[in-house]
Amino acid sequence: MLRSCAARPRTLSALRAARGGAPRPARDPGPARRSFSTEKVIHKDHSLPNPSWSKDLRLLFDQFMKKCEDGSWKHLPSSECKVPQRIHSFKTYFLDSKPVKEDQLSQARPFTRSYEVGQGFEYAMFYNEDEKRTVCLFQGGPYLEGPPGFLHGGALATMIDTTLGVCTISCMGLFMTANLNINFKSPIPLCSVVVISSQLDKVEGRKVFVSCNVRSVDEKTLHSDATDPVLVILYPYRMTFLHLILLFSLQR
Amino acid sequence: MLRSCAARPRTLSALRAARGGAPRPARDPGPARRSFSTEKVIHKDHSLPNPSWSKDLRLLFDQFMKKCEDGSWKHLPSSECKVPQRIHSFKTYFLDSKPVKEDQLSQARPFTRSYEVGQGFEYAMFYNEDEKRTVCLFQGGPYLEGPPGFLHGGALATMIDTTLGVCTISCMGLFMTANLNINFKSPIPLCSVVVISSQLDKVEGRKVFVSCNVRSVDEKTLHSDATDPVLVILYPYRMTFLHLILLFSLQR
Repeated sequence: MLRSCAARPRTLSALRAARGGAPRPARDPGPARRSFSTEKVIHKDHSLPNPSWSKDLRLLFDQFMKKCEDGSWKHLPSSECKVPQRIHSFKTYFLDSKPVKEDQLSQARPFTRSYEVGQGFEYAMFYNEDEKRTVCLFQGGPYLEGPPGFLHGGALATMIDTTLGVCTISCMGLFMTANLNINFKSPIPLCSVVVISSQLDKVEGRKVFVSCNVRSVDEKTLHSDATDPVLVILYPYRMTFLHLILLFSLQR
Repeated sequence: MLRSCAARPRTLSALRAARGGAPRPARDPGPARRSFSTEKVIHKDHSLPNPSWSKDLRLLFDQFMKKCEDGSWKHLPSSECKVPQRIHSFKTYFLDSKPVKEDQLSQARPFTRSYEVGQGFEYAMFYNEDEKRTVCLFQGGPYLEGPPGFLHGGALATMIDTTLGVCTISCMGLFMTANLNINFKSPIPLCSVVVISSQLDKVEGRKVFVSCNVRSVDEKTLHSDATDPVLVILYPYRMTFLHLILLFSLQR
């Protein structure tokens, strides 16, 4: 599905920031701080440590932030902002689907950031441009329970998909996920931290193949892997005027 | 992953009900009605219509409830209750995984029922024993947004997985998901209703193959399909004393 596109706005702004430009907020998170000197709205970055983060997650985050110092890795901020033009473009692109009603859309929240702090998806992402790799440090909160005491597989699938999407957009640009194939190896205890490592494997025409694995913090346990998901790039495949509108809108 | 097991307690109680026994609540949902005459706690069934349900979802629900009248289909209730013995059994079964801390476990909520009414996963399931089929009527709320105005693919993967899990447990009993392979065809507008139809395809030794498709209410749009997910049955595979404890606990 297109859920991978959800990560796109954040990622694009993150990459823009990584390339020297100012990160552009992608969604209105409600409370936002204002810098009155410039009247520029500063949106909250949800991928920074908060009180719900465990010691493991903080330690890993600090390790990766240290790796960012020499420029080999980039921290991808996760801020939000609703851009009406982008919403319109998605509606325009999917001409055959009935769009959501405006009053329902006003209540919408991005799935992976829809819980209160610490209850759901707590994560931070880092990107290595040379190695075409994206790493997601993920702590699944108590509201993501599947079997008693363990993370729901759907929650893990959500984070795998998000990480693969960020990896693809970082390396290749616009895309649409066509397939997601996950092997589940070992259950993840609730509230524990895992490392989701994804990488670009190959590009065949308009298809991009990315893969990932999910490991425990000590790397001893392989919880899951996702092999050969096929991600179809929208650009330059079937480029039309509508695609150009979409592309322009997403890169705003 | 084992997320499919999460649906197990509810399904088992539902099947028990379908076979003539009283459905057994599976998780404490907080507010529960009490019948003072018998002192029996009546847990809320989350799979019944509520004010957030759209006209489409209510209509479909009524259609399937009508199909239940001749006994060909069964409505699978979705009630909750935390059974300490079951939690302990899961911990015991996964000896190599670090269990979640008790204080964190007390805050745990099942992922697909962790949102307030109407915000997240609204769904009802029906089972046809003769055809080995399970149908899930699903309305994704505004907190499950992926691309602007559309459902997050991870949310759809969660519901696909849950439906396949219920289908497997209904037909075969205890299991653990080994693989989930989803093809995404068309995005689902937020707050719209889709029908997830799953069926048992074949059984090869300890492997069960189930598949499903996700269609719009008018059946004109194929949103997604999941082909050949391999589900490994715990019973009778590698049956040990620990498995027997687990089995006993789940069927309480």
